[in-house]
Amino acid sequence: MSGHFRANLALVGFGNVARRFAVLLEDRRELLMREYDLDCRIVGVATRRHGGEFDPHGVDVAEFDGKRSNTGGRPSLAFDIIERLGRSDADFRVVVETTTLDITAGEPAIAHVRAGVAAGCHVITANKGPVAFAYATLRDEADAAGVSFLFEGAVMDGIPIFNLVRETLPGVTLRGFRGVVNSTTNHILTALERGEPFDAALERMQSEGIAEADASLDIDGWDGAAKAAALANVLLDARLSPHAVRRIGIHKSDGARARQALASGKRLKLVASAVRDRNGSVSATVEPIELPTSDILASLDGKANALVLQTDLLGELAICQLEGNLTHTAYALLSDLVTIRRRQAQPAAPARRIL
Amino acid sequence: MSGHFRANLALVGFGNVARRFAVLLEDRRELLMREYDLDCRIVGVATRRHGGEFDPHGVDVAEFDGKRSNTGGRPSLAFDIIERLGRSDADFRVVVETTTLDITAGEPAIAHVRAGVAAGCHVITANKGPVAFAYATLRDEADAAGVSFLFEGAVMDGIPIFNLVRETLPGVTLRGFRGVVNSTTNHILTALERGEPFDAALERMQSEGIAEADASLDIDGWDGAAKAAALANVLLDARLSPHAVRRIGIHKSDGARARQALASGKRLKLVASAVRDRNGSVSATVEPIELPTSDILASLDGKANALVLQTDLLGELAICQLEGNLTHTAYALLSDLVTIRRRQAQPAAPARRIL
Repeated sequence: MSGHFRANLALVGFGNVARRFAVLLEDRRELLMREYDLDCRIVGVATRRHGGEFDPHGVDVAEFDGKRSNTGGRPSLAFDIIERLGRSDADFRVVVETTTLDITAGEPAIAHVRAGVAAGCHVITANKGPVAFAYATLRDEADAAGVSFLFEGAVMDGIPIFNLVRETLPGVTLRGFRGVVNSTTNHILTALERGEPFDAALERMQSEGIAEADASLDIDGWDGAAKAAALANVLLDARLSPHAVRRIGIHKSDGARARQALASGKRLKLVASAVRDRNGSVSATVEPIELPTSDILASLDGKANALVLQTDLLGELAICQLEGNLTHTAYALLSDLVTIRRRQAQPAAPARRIL
Repeated sequence: MSGHFRANLALVGFGNVARRFAVLLEDRRELLMREYDLDCRIVGVATRRHGGEFDPHGVDVAEFDGKRSNTGGRPSLAFDIIERLGRSDADFRVVVETTTLDITAGEPAIAHVRAGVAAGCHVITANKGPVAFAYATLRDEADAAGVSFLFEGAVMDGIPIFNLVRETLPGVTLRGFRGVVNSTTNHILTALERGEPFDAALERMQSEGIAEADASLDIDGWDGAAKAAALANVLLDARLSPHAVRRIGIHKSDGARARQALASGKRLKLVASAVRDRNGSVSATVEPIELPTSDILASLDGKANALVLQTDLLGELAICQLEGNLTHTAYALLSDLVTIRRRQAQPAAPARRIL
């Protein structure tokens, strides 16, 4: 144990992503120690409706999962646990925020991030709310506190987007992006092409667990708008919220449109995009577009996602997620942990601020 | 000037890539100083047939380019200049190797890399020979000498492949890859689909400057084999040479095959791939394959390249270069320079060895 960098973690939000993250963290324990000299311990768990637990010696997450009960929704619980995390003894402390997206204002996730930073903790999140609604503010607060605020899983699960730009494209300026970033709508549009009715396709996605019971966030383009805002805020230094994104979702009438597109050698895709205009202001859009099959976004069936980056030095490049699952999102949190560890080891090496 | 990290550079090989690199370096001088505190000076140039120059106070590359003459091919010139670079005064010294690929044994590029390392210089190269023929040896020699051997531009110009795996996928194990990595053959196959005869398509590529006058390295799959070996050696810890890659190029008879594939909803692509089998040994292949249009590699027209990585934690992900030009390759060298600078600043942060 001694000799390793010890990180104390608190899980704020305890849904599927947090649970899978806890399993992955255990699974890769040896690797994290061997390659990154990093020893992680989950010391806190805060749920929305099932209470929480804090133990500086470590919380047994599986055991907590089994015994948790309806102890009710004390809203201050998460903040209590974050505060105790901040006072706990370790080389560094990390809030792992995985509450679900609130599309009205990104809360309480933003408050969790802020509380973590204020308590001197690093914050990593798979929730796109904080980045989509308040990136610049949270980044500045984290900078001032000397901690990291990371969110690799917020947009394309574990596929590196933010790290790609931050770590591998030095000196490159981004001008815009466009992507297919919502799997539910991409699945539905693919089904519509095959002639499946909209409602039947949606129901099938729900029964297969691909779409949520309430799929309106996906269908109406809100998920895409939140991702577009998040990407624009980080990659293009915008100050957007999801509500500032021009947004057209998909509708029943898109069945005919999707089949018509296919018949004319095109494919209908829900495209999220943003561009910086000559005045420097950034506008973002989510809308269904007929794409020629020569467009890389047109080749993406169902579960595949992709983001095309428009750059000054490298023209267009794309990164594609050919499949997606819970482990990918959990992995994004793991990669954020490693980023924090690397920064700890590299005081002389501030990460390039993405602009 | 003072206060910046000063890097002395010697250009070994002075073709189009090296010239473009010199222009890009000048163009981004301010940015490198501002963002990376890095002040680069080209102090040496070695050409194959037009002599060379060394000046510790800096060589005016444009001027050298204008006045160079047929002073003949003294083979030791490059090594003399590398040795003088090694003795020159700077915070660090970098050999910029851009000689052309020799498919028989990767020379003299490998000897240049070795000489650079032996002289205590970092070495960056856009030549795939050294990585394709001798990666493990050169990496170990560089490690032992405490210098970096980097080659981001060797496979997909400036699109980050090696940095993607090294910097953004911590804890992920690669199982294999497959990609479309040769533009000339991809252009020709696309032309064949349209019914253009093989020879006419090849001639057009040559007249448009896309293919070399001697296009046999491309057509016969040697370029793809060298890239497959390079990727396998670095990403899968293989010990391949291009000659160990199973290799099938494209031929006149592929015209009918390409049109037939298209008629049946597929596309004929020259695919480079490698996979690690259960015994741990890695086999690599270059061959034309009919791909279904749902395959992301099938969507790549002409100038586009892409690499699909097969991983344990993230399933398949792909990175795509949607266009390519000389500036991209020059940029890869610039990004390698920044990687060296970052490593200088981060003594506590050894780059993850890619396995």
